[in-house]
Amino acid sequence: MRPSRIILGIDPGLGRTGWGVIKAKGIDLMALGFGCISTPANTAVGPRLVELENDLKTLIDKYHPDVLAIEQLLFTNNITTGIAVGAARGVVLLVAERSSIPVVEFTPTQVKLGVTGYGQADKAQVNGMVCRILKLEKPPTPDDAADALAIAICGSGARIEE
Amino acid sequence: MRPSRIILGIDPGLGRTGWGVIKAKGIDLMALGFGCISTPANTAVGPRLVELENDLKTLIDKYHPDVLAIEQLLFTNNITTGIAVGAARGVVLLVAERSSIPVVEFTPTQVKLGVTGYGQADKAQVNGMVCRILKLEKPPTPDDAADALAIAICGSGARIEE
Repeated sequence: MRPSRIILGIDPGLGRTGWGVIKAKGIDLMALGFGCISTPANTAVGPRLVELENDLKTLIDKYHPDVLAIEQLLFTNNITTGIAVGAARGVVLLVAERSSIPVVEFTPTQVKLGVTGYGQADKAQVNGMVCRILKLEKPPTPDDAADALAIAICGSGARIEE
Repeated sequence: MRPSRIILGIDPGLGRTGWGVIKAKGIDLMALGFGCISTPANTAVGPRLVELENDLKTLIDKYHPDVLAIEQLLFTNNITTGIAVGAARGVVLLVAERSSIPVVEFTPTQVKLGVTGYGQADKAQVNGMVCRILKLEKPPTPDDAADALAIAICGSGARIEE
């Protein structure tokens, strides 16, 4: 059996960055914490990126993750969102590198496939499986945190067996 | 006459970030330095962002800019480039905020208009005017540095009079 590992999953965004921390021991996965870093809308990007950086550092100091798993950015047609997500993602990758934490990336399809076994799964199906895999009493909220936990599950590299 | 100000112009990119520093005293503009921060292709994004951050800090320590001018990101159809530029731009905005340097942004059209008086100017026309405005003996190279100087000229807020 492999030693236990801590995985920090991140669903990046400028306004909302979901985070989820799990502990993986073999195929056994446990949620240690999850939540969402929010930064105030309609304010300059710089201070929001600094806030994101500070909060990420706090999470890393608290949980000491062995790996950071992040969703690969696939731009939508929304240019404004794409720019903001790109900047937030850059800050996450910078903080990970500064903290010497290896990064693994997954496409949205890989996350759905990894968690549910089905690449076209909808949000409810993914959240339901996150809940079952991590043996949570109720679905994690907000959605950003649930997404981050799904990414962390993928990052655990654990083969999910039912 | 306004006191002199130092403007750091940045044309952000993951592989190549052009930079140009000018000193503005009234309508008189002078180039203090320009160049391009390059990071090695085909390597992980994290270390490249850290390298960009370090080099930006070095420039700020050397020139003490009063303002940082940056090109506003308008995504092309090239998704890979857009993601990389978005990350690099996030790091630039983060460093500026950390260093308490105000940021001004310009669209590519605003830069062309500000430097040549014509929003549809081509690269050669922009570079030619950068050369004249800053009284450079020869056009600045590489192109990334010339673009950054053009952005810095816009950031000077000086009314260019011929």
